Amino acid sequence: VNVFTSRRAVKRIADSTVRRLSLYLRYLEDAEGRGLPTISSDELARRGGTTSAQVRKDLSFFGSFGKRGLGYAVPELASRLREILGLQRDWRVIIVGAGKIGAALAGYRGFQQRGFRVIGAYDSSPDKVGRQLDGVTIHDMNQLERDIARDRPHIAILAIPGDDAQRVVDRLVRAGVRAILNFASVQLQVPGEVALKTVNMAMELEGLSFALTNRE
Amino acid sequence: VNVFTSRRAVKRIADSTVRRLSLYLRYLEDAEGRGLPTISSDELARRGGTTSAQVRKDLSFFGSFGKRGLGYAVPELASRLREILGLQRDWRVIIVGAGKIGAALAGYRGFQQRGFRVIGAYDSSPDKVGRQLDGVTIHDMNQLERDIARDRPHIAILAIPGDDAQRVVDRLVRAGVRAILNFASVQLQVPGEVALKTVNMAMELEGLSFALTNRE
Repeated sequence: VNVFTSRRAVKRIADSTVRRLSLYLRYLEDAEGRGLPTISSDELARRGGTTSAQVRKDLSFFGSFGKRGLGYAVPELASRLREILGLQRDWRVIIVGAGKIGAALAGYRGFQQRGFRVIGAYDSSPDKVGRQLDGVTIHDMNQLERDIARDRPHIAILAIPGDDAQRVVDRLVRAGVRAILNFASVQLQVPGEVALKTVNMAMELEGLSFALTNRE
Repeated sequence: VNVFTSRRAVKRIADSTVRRLSLYLRYLEDAEGRGLPTISSDELARRGGTTSAQVRKDLSFFGSFGKRGLGYAVPELASRLREILGLQRDWRVIIVGAGKIGAALAGYRGFQQRGFRVIGAYDSSPDKVGRQLDGVTIHDMNQLERDIARDRPHIAILAIPGDDAQRVVDRLVRAGVRAILNFASVQLQVPGEVALKTVNMAMELEGLSFALTNRE
């Protein structure tokens, strides 16, 4: 759950709502590509794995969209969702940890397309420092604070083992990073003003083992 | 949303509920390690990023747990959650695509700990076939159907580019795979009896750009 102050009022927007906004946007962009002028809440609901009532509720947090019976104007709603999700600008991203997960993320083409620009990677291993990951230079962890002060990255992706993760998060937060995407499989503590998301690959598989277990 | 038939009744359990069950389980296992006999719904709520009312509601889908005022018995609830999530057994997993993401997943230690056993990887590149990724052999994509018929993997992880993803998913489904974790950034179609989860790294970052954009 994100606690945030919108331009209008203080609201709590659940992570699951934000995730659906991202899904709606993808569907709207498909529709834009196919030249569709409008889209119904039913169609958006199908893409978001939810109901049309939920779609209307999700969008109502951010103002009034669409006309009853006419659906949503595709380019307008896409543009508004990009604005809501903060995608009409570039974000500077650093990757901390240049192991296999860090390497996979440095080369991830979907980031650049969305305006997430990976400006550097960090590792403590002398074997890795100075090398490149898909055009991203690996720097020494000792330079982390100095580089953050200079480059002001908005987001840090944490791709290091769990044992070190909290210590590194504390360094990032002290240095001024305000958003962290964590791939370490530990629970991390951050101050309230820092946004933290954890991606846990085992948990994704648990969603599938649950589905396989609980059906006929 | 998973539609599934429980042992008791047909219910719809949202993906977000299953995700919270996984979070509760992690907290319970921490508590087990620290020797705590009971835990309150407030404590579970904090870990799951939700309210104690939501914790009680989530657990109520699966029977009656805990006693008013006494909290939940830690080992019992942990054991029951492992059962609900299907974690009291081993699952055979294959990885399709031996690029950077496939390689990172083959070496992911958290899978083995949860009973997700990676039994093979598949790639169409002759340079990769026959090599090992952290002890996992890369096989030729041509062998996919034959190997699935023999090894009966429960879950396939799809780590290939989006253009090929639907074609490969169709092959997996025809060969009998009933659960797919998709890392390709495309919307895939599967029949109702197949569980599909998509992990989209850009969407994870969008959750952070949203948080950075919508706060003071």
